[in-house]
Amino acid sequence: MSGLAAALEVVGARWALRIVEQLLDGPQRYGDLQRDLGVPTNMLATRLRELETAGVLRRLPLKHNTRAYALTERGLALRGAIDALARWGSAHVGEPAAGAADPQR
Amino acid sequence: MSGLAAALEVVGARWALRIVEQLLDGPQRYGDLQRDLGVPTNMLATRLRELETAGVLRRLPLKHNTRAYALTERGLALRGAIDALARWGSAHVGEPAAGAADPQR
Repeated sequence: MSGLAAALEVVGARWALRIVEQLLDGPQRYGDLQRDLGVPTNMLATRLRELETAGVLRRLPLKHNTRAYALTERGLALRGAIDALARWGSAHVGEPAAGAADPQR
Repeated sequence: MSGLAAALEVVGARWALRIVEQLLDGPQRYGDLQRDLGVPTNMLATRLRELETAGVLRRLPLKHNTRAYALTERGLALRGAIDALARWGSAHVGEPAAGAADPQR
């Protein structure tokens, strides 16, 4: 399996990279993640469980029965890829596509 | 919308980044893309149409009613993000997740 295919097995599902991006700045509580991302709660719970199983993030038990999540070393190592995708999105999405110069012509 | 959210709107769907990765080395015919990726043909057709609409790739009409696809400038600009994700996948997927050192402890 190629590196990209392996990566997408873990973080290719909808919302996964968005969740990791939110946690790059530090641990966050479940409720804050859900509010900031606007992700349906059942989807968030599923993705957090999958990312925890894959060793990308881990759960931090807090008082008053609340939970927070933090990236592991493996999760933090996604920063470069996430920043690169975000730069591409900012630079290239929203522009008109027509007439884009094409070096492969 | 954040840069990452915008990027994933265009290349977040299943197979999209895998298709772009295949075309980074140059134009490919539909049949070769399908064989190399092992993607179901209806999925491939849908993704190619979406990526074409988004200005990420374009269709190259060939003889004998075959089609090839090539990345545009916008598509080629994904190389950095794809390489970064592939490096992460090669380095971090498949390793045991337990006990990963966590700087955020």
